[in-house]
Amino acid sequence: MNKNNIWRGFASDNNAGVHPEILTELSEVNKGHAIGYGTDKYSEEAIRLFKDQFGDGTDVFFVFTGTAANVLGITAVTRSWNSVLTASTAHIEQDECGAPEKFSGCKVLTVDTPDGKLKTELLKKHMHGFGFEHHAQPGVISITQATEMGTVYTPSEISTLADLAHRHGMYLHMDGARISNAAASLNIPFKAFTTDAGVDILSFGGTKNGMMFGEAICFLRPGLSENFKYLRKQGMQLASKMRFISGQYIAFFRNELWKKNAMHSNSMAQLLFNKVKDIKGITITQRVESNGVFVLLPPGIAENLQKYYFFYPWDESRSEYRWMTSWDTTEEDIENFVELLKKELGT
Amino acid sequence: MNKNNIWRGFASDNNAGVHPEILTELSEVNKGHAIGYGTDKYSEEAIRLFKDQFGDGTDVFFVFTGTAANVLGITAVTRSWNSVLTASTAHIEQDECGAPEKFSGCKVLTVDTPDGKLKTELLKKHMHGFGFEHHAQPGVISITQATEMGTVYTPSEISTLADLAHRHGMYLHMDGARISNAAASLNIPFKAFTTDAGVDILSFGGTKNGMMFGEAICFLRPGLSENFKYLRKQGMQLASKMRFISGQYIAFFRNELWKKNAMHSNSMAQLLFNKVKDIKGITITQRVESNGVFVLLPPGIAENLQKYYFFYPWDESRSEYRWMTSWDTTEEDIENFVELLKKELGT
Amino acid sequence: MNKNNIWRGFASDNNAGVHPEILTELSEVNKGHAIGYGTDKYSEEAIRLFKDQFGDGTDVFFVFTGTAANVLGITAVTRSWNSVLTASTAHIEQDECGAPEKFSGCKVLTVDTPDGKLKTELLKKHMHGFGFEHHAQPGVISITQATEMGTVYTPSEISTLADLAHRHGMYLHMDGARISNAAASLNIPFKAFTTDAGVDILSFGGTKNGMMFGEAICFLRPGLSENFKYLRKQGMQLASKMRFISGQYIAFFRNELWKKNAMHSNSMAQLLFNKVKDIKGITITQRVESNGVFVLLPPGIAENLQKYYFFYPWDESRSEYRWMTSWDTTEEDIENFVELLKKELGT
Amino acid sequence: MNKNNIWRGFASDNNAGVHPEILTELSEVNKGHAIGYGTDKYSEEAIRLFKDQFGDGTDVFFVFTGTAANVLGITAVTRSWNSVLTASTAHIEQDECGAPEKFSGCKVLTVDTPDGKLKTELLKKHMHGFGFEHHAQPGVISITQATEMGTVYTPSEISTLADLAHRHGMYLHMDGARISNAAASLNIPFKAFTTDAGVDILSFGGTKNGMMFGEAICFLRPGLSENFKYLRKQGMQLASKMRFISGQYIAFFRNELWKKNAMHSNSMAQLLFNKVKDIKGITITQRVESNGVFVLLPPGIAENLQKYYFFYPWDESRSEYRWMTSWDTTEEDIENFVELLKKELGT
Repeated sequence: MNKNNIWRGFASDNNAGVHPEILTELSEVNKGHAIGYGTDKYSEEAIRLFKDQFGDGTDVFFVFTGTAANVLGITAVTRSWNSVLTASTAHIEQDECGAPEKFSGCKVLTVDTPDGKLKTELLKKHMHGFGFEHHAQPGVISITQATEMGTVYTPSEISTLADLAHRHGMYLHMDGARISNAAASLNIPFKAFTTDAGVDILSFGGTKNGMMFGEAICFLRPGLSENFKYLRKQGMQLASKMRFISGQYIAFFRNELWKKNAMHSNSMAQLLFNKVKDIKGITITQRVESNGVFVLLPPGIAENLQKYYFFYPWDESRSEYRWMTSWDTTEEDIENFVELLKKELGT
Repeated sequence: MNKNNIWRGFASDNNAGVHPEILTELSEVNKGHAIGYGTDKYSEEAIRLFKDQFGDGTDVFFVFTGTAANVLGITAVTRSWNSVLTASTAHIEQDECGAPEKFSGCKVLTVDTPDGKLKTELLKKHMHGFGFEHHAQPGVISITQATEMGTVYTPSEISTLADLAHRHGMYLHMDGARISNAAASLNIPFKAFTTDAGVDILSFGGTKNGMMFGEAICFLRPGLSENFKYLRKQGMQLASKMRFISGQYIAFFRNELWKKNAMHSNSMAQLLFNKVKDIKGITITQRVESNGVFVLLPPGIAENLQKYYFFYPWDESRSEYRWMTSWDTTEEDIENFVELLKKELGT
Repeated sequence: MNKNNIWRGFASDNNAGVHPEILTELSEVNKGHAIGYGTDKYSEEAIRLFKDQFGDGTDVFFVFTGTAANVLGITAVTRSWNSVLTASTAHIEQDECGAPEKFSGCKVLTVDTPDGKLKTELLKKHMHGFGFEHHAQPGVISITQATEMGTVYTPSEISTLADLAHRHGMYLHMDGARISNAAASLNIPFKAFTTDAGVDILSFGGTKNGMMFGEAICFLRPGLSENFKYLRKQGMQLASKMRFISGQYIAFFRNELWKKNAMHSNSMAQLLFNKVKDIKGITITQRVESNGVFVLLPPGIAENLQKYYFFYPWDESRSEYRWMTSWDTTEEDIENFVELLKKELGT
Repeated sequence: MNKNNIWRGFASDNNAGVHPEILTELSEVNKGHAIGYGTDKYSEEAIRLFKDQFGDGTDVFFVFTGTAANVLGITAVTRSWNSVLTASTAHIEQDECGAPEKFSGCKVLTVDTPDGKLKTELLKKHMHGFGFEHHAQPGVISITQATEMGTVYTPSEISTLADLAHRHGMYLHMDGARISNAAASLNIPFKAFTTDAGVDILSFGGTKNGMMFGEAICFLRPGLSENFKYLRKQGMQLASKMRFISGQYIAFFRNELWKKNAMHSNSMAQLLFNKVKDIKGITITQRVESNGVFVLLPPGIAENLQKYYFFYPWDESRSEYRWMTSWDTTEEDIENFVELLKKELGT
């Protein structure tokens, strides 16, 4: 597939492996014994690194998966009679096999969006029934940053949604599975579009940006996490050898590795976008603001490409596909892929 | 604490780190991209290795934690109106913060045991109400092998419980967080005291025997796992970069590393037992059949020892403590610890 | 409000009281002792009456509320990783405070409809992801008969949806809170548009048609209700003095009281419709096929009317209101109401 | 079976029918329309009557069954990681098919008692693990008054348990399915052994004391019920025609009908006790403090008696049976039953 014969495709940023610096760190923390379940020096340090990013009032809890971060974070601030408002493309709606409903008991209500981004006007249809016992009580607005469509909210867009939530006694949750890509895209600190913009609970993703596993639930407003440790344990997400999550985050934040990785994958998406945007017969369907390119392909093209570079359909009804770049995508990967695409298209 | 100045205690086998061969394997599998969520060659191989151990009819699913393995395995074979019968010392009763009840909806019913081992006679008091709609329907008997007290069931003891379960239309679940220690202790293949003894669902533990994370749910009887993939995802336990669980198991089974590790920790427990059993003033409370030693200490002794070698109280009401050995415990650790103990005891 | 000074409005058919024949029956069954929880002769008789209506293969379980009938009926045929597809106006979506999600763990997915009726084409967008573990598995299509908008499915429309469901291994559930009104409207037996049309699970409603409380969950296809008795008990819906639900159904089916009541309320809705449909300034928004009339009123009109005849807004954003008739609505009620309406409108 | 040929047995107080005054009241409230779901004058009055009994700070919510009252009341004051401590004979443990676990997510922990009554010393073994995330957090102590064994707590015994609960940040819940029998037995007002004794949440039972259905959840301490209306609806326990629960309570409290009924059934149990206590060959196993008599019978005796007067075994392993009296038990019933018993025993 490339000169080193190492296969890489565009299926998902979680098809990439672990960044070498993170792997090395795992060896580093693997010395002697450490008290289990998070009472170790690596976990303390990792938590401090999160506070550095998000503010001293932040409470951080590590879990295994992004789904778990979303589900437990939402459960922490709701009761079962609440509803969660989100985009119909959201991971919590499409890709978690009903985990939010099962675990929190909450109803998930969706709105269609053109680009994966919620807006006040779109949410309006679900912002009713407050105080009416027959109706699930709107409790959380959940946004994804960067969105599942690769678009990115601005800080002011987030503030507007936070205000909407808070005016109604609701919380703003951010699914940050690709938060590093968003931060790199906006080129501002994490804090500027989370804590400072009014986000209450954040699912901070590491796995899609070069880690092996391990996400963080960040409570950005005081008073939300008091009993969360019980919820994490009951939610089957308490790692016994916690240092191997913590250690990864130590490497992740050191010398802004997270940013280097995210900037790289974003730039690879830009490169891909620039190389294909003028090709006749294909249509880019979303703004390329992070590390995904969404594209309409003529029938029959995808199948052949996928033999060499695997990727997923996004909306089969209109032949739309998703190309994701990752921290280890190379320029050569892009060039070879675009060459192959052109050949398939006969251009 | 020892000549290499690497701290090691007797708190838990999950305080130990990752075995070097497993860490090396993580680097090996970290090459290029791999399709996420288990559709990769490493996961295929790891599953084959499990079938080698437990039989071709075995279905294997990887999850993150032992709690998850227990909870999801039990949920797979129950409906919410069932009950789960177990020892009052069981992990599912004492140490999972109610996760089994929360996720499965089932009632957990316990019986007191002298040594952590269930017996037909003990279970009798909960084996009633079948068909009576007011009463939760007994659905699962759950045993731990090796038990939380370090004791080990014989294959025939397990068969007897399996027969009891099956006669009542129930399933036998084994919490095998320390199954390697049990196998090493019995010195028979895994299959001989699981599949062949009538166990239906097994939580196979790796973390306590030298892995970083990642347990396996093994369905040992056909027809139980048809929809389990949905349950795992909904249970927030589907690893995106699955190869990093699978890879560990490849190393774990290669050259019987699992056995080497387990035999070592078991033998360290024996060494400890032999060195302390005749010391005046202390009492060993359980048979030492795997890698734990349970001991009554005179008041004031534990506190001083714990400053150097951390370990947990088991039953504070009678000053009972638990000493766990692990794959990396050294003879020197034992000798130094016993020396210190004797000093504290003034013997 | 009327010559007997007995207040009656158009808020809901559950604002009406209990039909005298049903009340009388409650006295009849109140003699001596009866074994609790359904093992009594009245319950046996009531179940036989249901089998007369729906076929001998029907299994019937009484519960207290329509919400319970819906939630438990759906839970009986799903596992937590399933989804339930329904109209966005459905009671299970709008009016049960998230009870389906909380109890079944399932995701509820909705489609917008013009008239409360599902159609194959509308459902298409949710009929995907089968076998894909990330996606909640479509398990049930739930329709309401008569719908929340007062419209009624024909038997062939129901058959089409049943076929769609069954082709995908799904079940068809009918929320029959107003099933009597639908049967009266179609003027065919219950069986013709339920069992015979492929409905699998039916929530049969009595309360809105003259009963005091007590709905029935009917399993119309064999093999679905094997363990339902446990689910009903665990769902807090097992009546101890069951004869007081059963007895009501004995009166309900005797001499087709259900039909008399439903035909009456339907005809009152028709009368209301006929008297208002040509009034200038108001618009009827739905076909009047059962006992509800949906209407757009000019601003300010509703408030005054509601002082005398209470009724609810349906869609406040467009000043739409719902007028429900019931078994005890009189022609005089309609005449007085329309007179008042005209006065308010100045026509 | 008796001169009026009306069958009455000793199976359960819920095998009895509805007291005539309550049945009459149902006709009274059945006039015209009433707004559904509790916003009606009857419900207001019934709530006021509860406040008269339990204090003005009491919040009252009606539900259908005792199981629902227990489960929702407990859920209201817990989160899923809590545990509920109760007697192993408690209804929530033995007779609710796991509903508390399913709905609240909580673990139910039990202690054996000689007489169904919890005591501080007995509870000790579960009062630990506070703050430890691996362990379900003790959240509620649940007592039954009168107990399932017919015994009655004194106010001071209840105060002691309330203090124990409150000292640990827990709540005291009372399952009052037979609270009237307890109040009649103690001959003190309800308030004296509930609100004044520190009970936080009360399941107030009506059905076993002459009502048709309908129990009340009373929050006796301010601040516990803020969102309970959502929980009741989501728990499928909101009656649409609420006036038919409320109306029953109006009759129930009028002229202390509740007390008359309870005193009667208690006195019938005393009569039965006095007539059998000296019969050779049988043994009374519990103090007769309310309306139940527990007895050991020689083998073969029960079966014959049950043909004429139905009753249930309590503990088959030792041939123990339960005889319950009810509001409609007559002296003649007792006399005939004892006569038959003596005949069977050959005394």
